[in-house]
Amino acid sequence: MKRKFVYFFSKKQSDGNKEMKNLLGGKGAGLAEMASIGLPVPAGFTITTEVCDLFYKNDKHYPAGLEKEVDENMRKLEKEVGKKFGDANDPLLVSVRSGAPLSMPGMMETILNLGLNDRSVTGLALKTGNRRFALDAYRRFIMMYGSTAKGIDREEFNHAFEALKSQRTRQRLALPSHAKVNDTDVDESELQLLVEEFKAIYKRNIGQDFPQDPREQLWGSVDAVFGSWMAEKAVTYRRVEKIKGVVGTAVNVQQMVFGNMGPKSGTGVCFTRDPNSGENTFYGDYLVNAQGEDVVAGIRTPIKLSDFEKADPASYKQLVDVRRTLERHFKDMQDLEFTVEEGRLYMLQCRTGKRSPAASFRIAVDMVAEGLIPREQAILRIKDKDIEGIFYPIIDPDQKEEMKKNFLVSGIDAVPGAACGKVVFNAKDAEAAAAHGEKVILVRKETSPEDVGGMHAAQGILTATGGKTSHAAVVARGWGKCCIVGCEKLNINYEKGELSVGDSVVRQGEEITLNGSTGQVYRGAMRLIKPEPPASFKTLMGWVDKIRAIRVRTNADTPYDAAKGVELGAEGIGLCRTEHMFFDTEERRLAIQEMIVADTLPGRVEALAKLLPFQKEDFKGIFKAMDGFPVTIRLIDPPLHEFVPHTEEKQIQLADQIGVPYEKVRLRVEQLHEANPMLGHRGCRLCITYPEILDMQVRAVIEAACECAQAGVKVMPEIMIPLTIDKKELAILDQRTRQLADAIIRERGARLRYLVGTMIEVPRAALLADQIAEVAEFFSFGTNDLTQMTMGISRDDAGKFLPDYVDEKKAGVFADDPFQSLDQDGVGMLVRMGIEKGRRTKPGLKIGICGEHGGEAKSVEFCCRVGMNYVSCSPFRVPIARLAAAQAEIKRKQASAPAKAKKGAVKKAKPAKIKATAKKIRKTAKKQFPKRKIVRGKKTKKR
Amino acid sequence: MKRKFVYFFSKKQSDGNKEMKNLLGGKGAGLAEMASIGLPVPAGFTITTEVCDLFYKNDKHYPAGLEKEVDENMRKLEKEVGKKFGDANDPLLVSVRSGAPLSMPGMMETILNLGLNDRSVTGLALKTGNRRFALDAYRRFIMMYGSTAKGIDREEFNHAFEALKSQRTRQRLALPSHAKVNDTDVDESELQLLVEEFKAIYKRNIGQDFPQDPREQLWGSVDAVFGSWMAEKAVTYRRVEKIKGVVGTAVNVQQMVFGNMGPKSGTGVCFTRDPNSGENTFYGDYLVNAQGEDVVAGIRTPIKLSDFEKADPASYKQLVDVRRTLERHFKDMQDLEFTVEEGRLYMLQCRTGKRSPAASFRIAVDMVAEGLIPREQAILRIKDKDIEGIFYPIIDPDQKEEMKKNFLVSGIDAVPGAACGKVVFNAKDAEAAAAHGEKVILVRKETSPEDVGGMHAAQGILTATGGKTSHAAVVARGWGKCCIVGCEKLNINYEKGELSVGDSVVRQGEEITLNGSTGQVYRGAMRLIKPEPPASFKTLMGWVDKIRAIRVRTNADTPYDAAKGVELGAEGIGLCRTEHMFFDTEERRLAIQEMIVADTLPGRVEALAKLLPFQKEDFKGIFKAMDGFPVTIRLIDPPLHEFVPHTEEKQIQLADQIGVPYEKVRLRVEQLHEANPMLGHRGCRLCITYPEILDMQVRAVIEAACECAQAGVKVMPEIMIPLTIDKKELAILDQRTRQLADAIIRERGARLRYLVGTMIEVPRAALLADQIAEVAEFFSFGTNDLTQMTMGISRDDAGKFLPDYVDEKKAGVFADDPFQSLDQDGVGMLVRMGIEKGRRTKPGLKIGICGEHGGEAKSVEFCCRVGMNYVSCSPFRVPIARLAAAQAEIKRKQASAPAKAKKGAVKKAKPAKIKATAKKIRKTAKKQFPKRKIVRGKKTKKR
Repeated sequence: MKRKFVYFFSKKQSDGNKEMKNLLGGKGAGLAEMASIGLPVPAGFTITTEVCDLFYKNDKHYPAGLEKEVDENMRKLEKEVGKKFGDANDPLLVSVRSGAPLSMPGMMETILNLGLNDRSVTGLALKTGNRRFALDAYRRFIMMYGSTAKGIDREEFNHAFEALKSQRTRQRLALPSHAKVNDTDVDESELQLLVEEFKAIYKRNIGQDFPQDPREQLWGSVDAVFGSWMAEKAVTYRRVEKIKGVVGTAVNVQQMVFGNMGPKSGTGVCFTRDPNSGENTFYGDYLVNAQGEDVVAGIRTPIKLSDFEKADPASYKQLVDVRRTLERHFKDMQDLEFTVEEGRLYMLQCRTGKRSPAASFRIAVDMVAEGLIPREQAILRIKDKDIEGIFYPIIDPDQKEEMKKNFLVSGIDAVPGAACGKVVFNAKDAEAAAAHGEKVILVRKETSPEDVGGMHAAQGILTATGGKTSHAAVVARGWGKCCIVGCEKLNINYEKGELSVGDSVVRQGEEITLNGSTGQVYRGAMRLIKPEPPASFKTLMGWVDKIRAIRVRTNADTPYDAAKGVELGAEGIGLCRTEHMFFDTEERRLAIQEMIVADTLPGRVEALAKLLPFQKEDFKGIFKAMDGFPVTIRLIDPPLHEFVPHTEEKQIQLADQIGVPYEKVRLRVEQLHEANPMLGHRGCRLCITYPEILDMQVRAVIEAACECAQAGVKVMPEIMIPLTIDKKELAILDQRTRQLADAIIRERGARLRYLVGTMIEVPRAALLADQIAEVAEFFSFGTNDLTQMTMGISRDDAGKFLPDYVDEKKAGVFADDPFQSLDQDGVGMLVRMGIEKGRRTKPGLKIGICGEHGGEAKSVEFCCRVGMNYVSCSPFRVPIARLAAAQAEIKRKQASAPAKAKKGAVKKAKPAKIKATAKKIRKTAKKQFPKRKIVRGKKTKKR
Repeated sequence: MKRKFVYFFSKKQSDGNKEMKNLLGGKGAGLAEMASIGLPVPAGFTITTEVCDLFYKNDKHYPAGLEKEVDENMRKLEKEVGKKFGDANDPLLVSVRSGAPLSMPGMMETILNLGLNDRSVTGLALKTGNRRFALDAYRRFIMMYGSTAKGIDREEFNHAFEALKSQRTRQRLALPSHAKVNDTDVDESELQLLVEEFKAIYKRNIGQDFPQDPREQLWGSVDAVFGSWMAEKAVTYRRVEKIKGVVGTAVNVQQMVFGNMGPKSGTGVCFTRDPNSGENTFYGDYLVNAQGEDVVAGIRTPIKLSDFEKADPASYKQLVDVRRTLERHFKDMQDLEFTVEEGRLYMLQCRTGKRSPAASFRIAVDMVAEGLIPREQAILRIKDKDIEGIFYPIIDPDQKEEMKKNFLVSGIDAVPGAACGKVVFNAKDAEAAAAHGEKVILVRKETSPEDVGGMHAAQGILTATGGKTSHAAVVARGWGKCCIVGCEKLNINYEKGELSVGDSVVRQGEEITLNGSTGQVYRGAMRLIKPEPPASFKTLMGWVDKIRAIRVRTNADTPYDAAKGVELGAEGIGLCRTEHMFFDTEERRLAIQEMIVADTLPGRVEALAKLLPFQKEDFKGIFKAMDGFPVTIRLIDPPLHEFVPHTEEKQIQLADQIGVPYEKVRLRVEQLHEANPMLGHRGCRLCITYPEILDMQVRAVIEAACECAQAGVKVMPEIMIPLTIDKKELAILDQRTRQLADAIIRERGARLRYLVGTMIEVPRAALLADQIAEVAEFFSFGTNDLTQMTMGISRDDAGKFLPDYVDEKKAGVFADDPFQSLDQDGVGMLVRMGIEKGRRTKPGLKIGICGEHGGEAKSVEFCCRVGMNYVSCSPFRVPIARLAAAQAEIKRKQASAPAKAKKGAVKKAKPAKIKATAKKIRKTAKKQFPKRKIVRGKKTKKR
């Protein structure tokens, strides 16, 4: 069958509808839809996105038959409108607009008044009885066609106009030399001159006369639209916004209507609800006697809709009716463009309106209350960015000028939000300043566990190296603390106490502002605002929790984080990293360092004994914060060299403090050096070599749990062994853990149940999960490390090449950074294998994820799909994970609903099987952990 | 059914046979077998290894019923022999010997004359009419029981004996004080005194009288045998020799026969063929009038078998008959122990004899010629160590004393063979010394690619760090150069120019000797010998090549290595690492460093152009050496920081040489630093970032190939892209490679076919092999890196914990070091997946392995089993791989032969499927590469 390249739309007939966004673009589909439901839309036709695709696939040639189809549609349009394209007396004028399936800045936008030429401009003047209007339309057309379609610098036209206005008009109007002259002050004869001047500019630039043939004008414009699809700005935008799978833009050719025909004419843009607050009020701007591009150009100041109502109540009434119709029809807030031509309203665009995070929640919840949409729909409309926007402070957007002026450098947006403070270059200074109540930004080449105290004390963190999963980023994310990393242009000179970007120098103590949401750094202190979560946020998240089928836990290493997690909706801890506790105080740090330097078992045991009370206290605090929720505690994981000082000065100091010769410290540190620490002596390998570390940690966990349990706290500790690669290895540590734990429980006469399980974070563990599940009571997928090893990519070093791999313009190998969004093909295959094999051995095996991916929407959906019991993420991402889990469940139900209807249909074996397993598991999980009613924030009234 | 714990053997009845080694131990099975084929074996019984296993499983208690069974068998033995155990007048005396399934030094060996006591010794004297003999037997028994079973220091007994001999006998014999006194010179009365003295020693040590009850003596001895199974020496031996799956030792209780009853008596050990040369001559020692332990003690010098023949032809004749019978029966060279008691031969042991590498080949080939065994059997008997022993020099074993005296330190035996030379501490000194004809040993903390020249110049390499697959080990192995790594006790002080182990210091220029086969280092220069490969080696390897079903290639980076590989039987190059070429000369090194420091594309291209002619020449040399064989060339793989200098001095020098500011070099080196270089910016990621490197390398390969082809060389280049993780990534580089290669071939008008394929060395590549095979024309499994990533173990750092993981006494998680022998469970699963998925996409996909595992026997067998087309390994391991491939094929045929017979039987789906695929592939492979007749070494006569 011949493919249809052009779709017509008018009140009488619309070939398209709103479902055809991919083929007709957003604008084309919207126009077709509006026309088909009887709204006043100027007639026209849409050339499909497929033509754009074929154009590029066929070496910039249009598919055969297109020209004929366009001609046919133009004849249809002429018939509908009753005017002829190119007619000298009463010409049909059209607009040509691009319209991709997604709103896409950077592409050619609009050419208006197409069809005018030297002859028809006169016809138009006669027909409208308004020569000034006709000339104004013509000069606009020449300028738009010349600049937009043919690439002539718009400034040339503007200059000419300004020159005209300044030299002649001012004289004529006898205005003072500095007075502003409005476009509308220019008269007919001046416009006539301007038309000639514009045509001259055109010829000078293009080398040909301005085309008089409307067909040539049309195809020139169509060429320009399709050409702009691959313009650098558009390509960059698609890359930055990660827009993929969109094949091209459509072109909309539409009968012109004129907002510039007098005081009963005008043009406007509006939203059916307030896009900032989400309030159900009509919101927009209107410009009297103007064409669309005047609004964009910002030359004149538009009036508010309320003033429009006062100025032209009849036209306004039409618009209000359209607003109601559209919201009922689309069941979402719409962003509209319209023109009033001598008292008659025409709709030029309608699309789903962009909105602020707060408005997203309010509109969704309101529309449920209004009966427009079901709750599921409301939930599906919320994006993870909406939640981020609710929680993090932002730079007050009113400071655009200051932001432009003070921009310093850009890095990688590791943790969103904004922060400002005085620059400090080391953790100690940060802590000291914070102790004096000063706000500081910690600036480092990179951070290490030793910096954690200073990082916590700082308002925000800025590093010159590292990616989104570098130490700085991961730690900061855990706290929801603004963080920018991998700021490669940043030169840091610790000695001088200054940072520089090119010639620009910022000294210690000077203020900077970070925008963690964009990665931008500014000199000076910007004004920050913190949006207040609207009531609708709580309402919607309540629905979310009812719908989602898997649990959401948090990663937390301290009682503070644990409490934060619970406050944000976490139902347990999925990852408590015990080693961060070692850096909390000088005393702890010394104890762990003494343990590492000791070269005998008794020496190590003695040093570890000093740590025991600290860890125990930490665990008690965490258990209390998590009363009634499970807490997964991971045994020591990082290689020991992360705990020891690496400079001679600090080594001497340490030797002094723990009373051993400096040489011994130096040698031990040297001996701990590893070529690839990620694959080195870490994780459970440490406990194989030094089982006394396991003993101390298990003792701390179990003693703390016993004491809490005996004090009436509901404790559910889950001891997690990291980096397992073999069943036998796990069995050795599992046995040691249980023997000790059981002995302590017996000795204390406590009633305590605990689990022992393992991380699945090395490919071999996933491959042999069936064997490992013989020992483990739970699995937690550590997808950070699993990604590193499965893909062979060190996340600390990935900054050197991974950006090229994700950049579509460079290699474009991956759609997403695999450390942000789980690589479902590769790493995901291992996760699926691990789950399937693990449950083959233990059908009810509890399985979760505790990598960074546990707080990323697409990854959470994956976790739901493959049948995990829970995801775990940093406290500030808990709401995102809750939302994603609910969305996944809604999509699952929606996908299975039609499947149920046509039960006989053949399904692919595997997904069905996985789904069935997932369902079974969810059932089991619900039984194992009946949902607790969670009351947080404001107490309910019944108390 | 009750388990049988004791197996009787005698001429009349043997419960066991030679197949029951696991249950009866080697000795027990051999005795049973010899008895059952009618050879003269003193009767006795064997307590099974199962008893030993149960003994340890049951907290050192014997299983119920054992005692009764032993008593029954003792009664049977009494009946057979016609004497009573413990009889005062004519006692039945027995020997008690341990006998594990494998020969196992370190365990308790033998207690003779058991059953003697103060009364029966008189009975024995009367019965034999030889009181001296009876007393001698008794004093021996007391000494053996006291020392061997009860742990009294043997020296106490020896001292007492020596004291006796020196003080009294010398007086009596009026010998000068320095004269040697033989045991046989001691008379009856002196022996009587000795017996009393020995009993006194026993009582002094044990606190009890020497046991007079023969049953107590028997169980004391049995206890001692089983107890010795877990003695440290035995456990260590099993660990070192990687003996697993052996549950325990058996105990043999056997009627005593006496070689010490006069000149017509004696005892001997012999081999049915010469165990050193393999020559088919009778080989052994005989000691007249002696018991077994006299041979071991080395107090008297035995005579050769030829002298035995002269001295006692009748007894010798019996032995020769036994020799013939046993070789015919066992079809292998046997190691025998026998005793002649007054002209009558008794066999005490028979087992497969250990032999030198040369003898292994000779005996195997001779036995085929003699019609004793088929060729397949001959091939299966050769071990990889036999081949190593043929090629590598060894320390002349006659220097035992010197070795003991000069032993310095032990490291990891990375590359076998021996080397001696003067110590140097850096590559430059090594090169300089070698240029003067001096032999040196390069001693480094660790080696890097910059050291390669010096490593090549040295006789051997010794490093303080690293494992068997560290840089030093891998490079040295490629050359078959003796190398010891991970010598952790070694302190190297580069500044002072000395190494030390504890207080022992060796200065630069002093000589040391390395034994790469054991990892031991000696001071001074030992005498080395290099065994000459026997003719039988070539004969047998000829059979090997006819039988094996997969190809064996070599890893070679130079024409020299390539030629070496061909000489040793390689049929192509499986891995040619191009980066080693960059270090060959100062000029090349500078060019690559200039390329790295350059910050513009033209700068890099210019520097690369300097490298092009060098690489091209190298490739031409390699293609010529490999005329008619495929050559797989891997594009640049290591991270760039491996190519740049890391000391300030060298950086300044480099800056000077390439004419850029020092600061620029320093910054670039700093920038190249990576936290985990193994998972960093390397492999094909470099070519994604710097495609100009790919361009240069592809140009060098293809231009060299065109020129060789046009000169009549048969060239088959295979360009291999390393570290691929995604189909799209590979497609980008594949396309660039082909475009350039095709253009060069067209331009030169050459006729050249080439392949483009990839390494599968990252887990993701194996997981997504079906997609990757859409692009790749061949796969080569890089199992070194695949092992590192799948197991999460950096081979450079594994030395810190992996030994514990392999050590059965510690964690014992793995049976073998996974970097030596492929981890078939985990990594192997990915390899199987990769092959299966790859061939699902491309059924004929050529697949090989180029990791270190390609030269390790068990891994090669795995490669055969999973259907690879070839293995590739360093030149010196090529014969080992050829042998392993043939052995794998023989085993496969043997395994499938009975399977064919019972075709109806149910088989597991997967292995069968894999086998079928493997078979199909082998067929295809044979078609694609018909076997070329390879003539090397001596030319055939027809020429």
